[in-house]
Amino acid sequence: MTAYDRLTARFARIATIQEAAAMLGWDAAAMMPPGGGAARGDQLAVLAGLAHGLLVAPEVADDLAAAEADPPHDDPWHAANLRLMRHAHTRAAALPGRLVEAQARENSACEKVWREARAQSDFAAVRPYLATVVGLVREQADALAPRLGLTPYDALMDGYQRGIGAADVAPVFAAYETFLADALPRAEARQAARPAPLRPAGPFPVAAQEALCRRLSARLGLDFTHARLDRSAHPFSGGTPTDVRITTRYDPADFAQAVLGVVHETGHALYERGLPAAHARQPVGEAAGMAAHESQSLIIEMQAARSDAFLAWLGPELLGAFGGDPAPYAPANLGRLWRRVERGFIRVDADEMTYPAHVILRFRLEQALIGGDLAVADLPGAWNDGLRALLGVTPPDDARGCLQDIHWYDGGFGYFPSYTMGAMAAAQLMAAARRAVTGLDAALAEGDAAPLVGWLRAQVHAKGSLLGFQDLLRAATGKPLDPGDFEAHLTARYLT
Amino acid sequence: MTAYDRLTARFARIATIQEAAAMLGWDAAAMMPPGGGAARGDQLAVLAGLAHGLLVAPEVADDLAAAEADPPHDDPWHAANLRLMRHAHTRAAALPGRLVEAQARENSACEKVWREARAQSDFAAVRPYLATVVGLVREQADALAPRLGLTPYDALMDGYQRGIGAADVAPVFAAYETFLADALPRAEARQAARPAPLRPAGPFPVAAQEALCRRLSARLGLDFTHARLDRSAHPFSGGTPTDVRITTRYDPADFAQAVLGVVHETGHALYERGLPAAHARQPVGEAAGMAAHESQSLIIEMQAARSDAFLAWLGPELLGAFGGDPAPYAPANLGRLWRRVERGFIRVDADEMTYPAHVILRFRLEQALIGGDLAVADLPGAWNDGLRALLGVTPPDDARGCLQDIHWYDGGFGYFPSYTMGAMAAAQLMAAARRAVTGLDAALAEGDAAPLVGWLRAQVHAKGSLLGFQDLLRAATGKPLDPGDFEAHLTARYLT
Repeated sequence: MTAYDRLTARFARIATIQEAAAMLGWDAAAMMPPGGGAARGDQLAVLAGLAHGLLVAPEVADDLAAAEADPPHDDPWHAANLRLMRHAHTRAAALPGRLVEAQARENSACEKVWREARAQSDFAAVRPYLATVVGLVREQADALAPRLGLTPYDALMDGYQRGIGAADVAPVFAAYETFLADALPRAEARQAARPAPLRPAGPFPVAAQEALCRRLSARLGLDFTHARLDRSAHPFSGGTPTDVRITTRYDPADFAQAVLGVVHETGHALYERGLPAAHARQPVGEAAGMAAHESQSLIIEMQAARSDAFLAWLGPELLGAFGGDPAPYAPANLGRLWRRVERGFIRVDADEMTYPAHVILRFRLEQALIGGDLAVADLPGAWNDGLRALLGVTPPDDARGCLQDIHWYDGGFGYFPSYTMGAMAAAQLMAAARRAVTGLDAALAEGDAAPLVGWLRAQVHAKGSLLGFQDLLRAATGKPLDPGDFEAHLTARYLT
Repeated sequence: MTAYDRLTARFARIATIQEAAAMLGWDAAAMMPPGGGAARGDQLAVLAGLAHGLLVAPEVADDLAAAEADPPHDDPWHAANLRLMRHAHTRAAALPGRLVEAQARENSACEKVWREARAQSDFAAVRPYLATVVGLVREQADALAPRLGLTPYDALMDGYQRGIGAADVAPVFAAYETFLADALPRAEARQAARPAPLRPAGPFPVAAQEALCRRLSARLGLDFTHARLDRSAHPFSGGTPTDVRITTRYDPADFAQAVLGVVHETGHALYERGLPAAHARQPVGEAAGMAAHESQSLIIEMQAARSDAFLAWLGPELLGAFGGDPAPYAPANLGRLWRRVERGFIRVDADEMTYPAHVILRFRLEQALIGGDLAVADLPGAWNDGLRALLGVTPPDDARGCLQDIHWYDGGFGYFPSYTMGAMAAAQLMAAARRAVTGLDAALAEGDAAPLVGWLRAQVHAKGSLLGFQDLLRAATGKPLDPGDFEAHLTARYLT
């Protein structure tokens, strides 16, 4: 057995433990009775500890050194896999066990307090907990940075989208801010000049919504011999590549959230299903990062499903499922209903044009928090000032301000930029797909996403982590991340 | 940290891994799409390997020796826990890794072939696989026996119900065989002299059955903040003590299987829920074995729920749930319907009087297989001869003969006696409960199992594995396993 063979066996074992944890995480959100929560936390902690132990074991460093001394000459998958193993080992080994444990404990404590603080809009209640979490994240970033040769904040970003740092994102975001300042008022004016959209009249029985969602997901390409659709408080895509689990929630008064949510999660699920089976359970066989993942959900939801072409097919399908007055189901009306811009307070409710403003705000604030330039106590004011500068609105309370997202309160810093990188990459990939695949929109107009999904499989899914995010985009679209296609998409959809 | 403290930490870790595996096992049976099967097998194998590795690590032997050299003087839980740790370690360490792997592989291969062989009633197709499985089980038994100071077959039985061997069971079974030879014809004659039971007319909507099952399970004491009820091809009780998962299957033409199945699984679930939380994840905090577990499902299903008292309450409940002609729901009719004896071929369909005959047959045959006194090739003939001797009927084919149960084909030898030990223990415990708890039957007649369950909690559930099976029965009923109460129960129910 070569050193590289030992490493692949070890990483397969680690990935298999992580698969078990992924299924238990899905269960906790979708199935578990509340009384199971304490034991589940222990189960996940033990599995995480076992995976971590396998990753930082002393033999790994020896095997990595031996494998790197005998690099492959003609197999880019092997070479990339070895680089990714080194990267995973470096990240894991950089953190002292004491810090990992403290973060697990303090993040969990803070997140619990945050739930209540958000409900009460009481930032002061969670402030000391968040201060502890931020302090530990700064320690984490400081421990990672020198080992990765990155700035502390970039070391955090790297944990979500490898190889991408603030310097990649800041100019792209700045350019978008300029675009938005011009585009948003024009989009609002255009919207105001058009007829208000009609809302389909409910109620919409949950069983009918669920059956429709399942049909739609299958139609978009998800194979339910390898997938499930269930319910959870917060929709997500989880599970493993051969057993993906997507969830949504149903509102009997409005089917839009469930339908569009399932379309979004289906995009994530198709990515997992399309990962290269030959490299399953190896780092190189994994999805290419969180921005890449978000690009796959958003290309299905925002680019494909909300397109004029797809709505022309979807409108009659919805009418068939729910009946009643056909007027709200006319494709043009669905377009007006599901493509509205609005200067809101809440990120997860934001339209695709203003969503990046919410991300830009968080990107700047979290850089300041990690860099020590913003005290936790000053966060609410900085938040409100920032949102006002970007969107011209001020949250009426902290619940709709700096308390709205779980991420920071659970120790997640450096993640937010992935959402907007993903949205931009989705537009860039869609433009490239339209150039490469003839009849792509004609197929969407018949509810057929196969031409698009087939192209994504070849260009994105099947590549796993062979390429970094920017190289993946270069190979698929001819250029690295570029907000131009996203702006062109928004211009076409909202301004013309 | 003392050696004992290190051991409790280690066994808690092992138990937590096993909890994760239990949840994944439940998921595989109740939720998993078929495409997830291969990955799930890997996940379970890795978790089993990790737990096994923790159990046989060299430090365990050292810590056990140190802890045993400094035994506790006044804490029977501590003392019992240490004995059980030693026992678990001895069993695990006795088996070479090569054998454990070979058994996992060959059992799985045999079980797959068995599914098809049973469908085709083709024993010859699975014969060589079963021969391999039996050969490995004999190796396993031979490896365990000297370490445990038991005969090879007893070493296998010990794996399911610690401390119980063939010498405990054989005389009890022999006595029952004598009882049955007399009682069964008399029960048949009495049954033939009574009116045939009326069958409730369906269909019975699955949703209504499921709602009823959930209500019934809660009424019997299962707290659904710590439990779920789902569907699977084969009903079972799984999960963990704070998150039990029971399943059943629904036949729209007959609700009896689902209702009585859920009652049975609720008995198992109540046991898990009632285990001593102070000793959670320690060997002494676990259920006392498979016979003890079966006694808890059968005391709820056979002793309590099928009693005249409970049927008096259940009949109107069923009528309320399903409506229609009330006559079949009369308690006396339900008694005739659900308490019929029949000389059948299939163990899982057997009534409580003939069920032990099916177990006695398997007990004798598996002893002969493990002892080398019966060749696998001769199994079908020996099976048919044995059933004829016990019940006077001959299976028309091997599908309804020696191919009917999964156990042996999956490597499970020594388990079958637990079913009948459990049935006998259930009767023995019920008799003791009736002596100890006034108003037990009056409460059952109002659908209230709390007096019975409360007594079981104190006498059985809360004791975990503090006592062995026989001592548990002695403490609760004043005597070790004794078929007398079971025979008295059958006499009262079927012969008077």
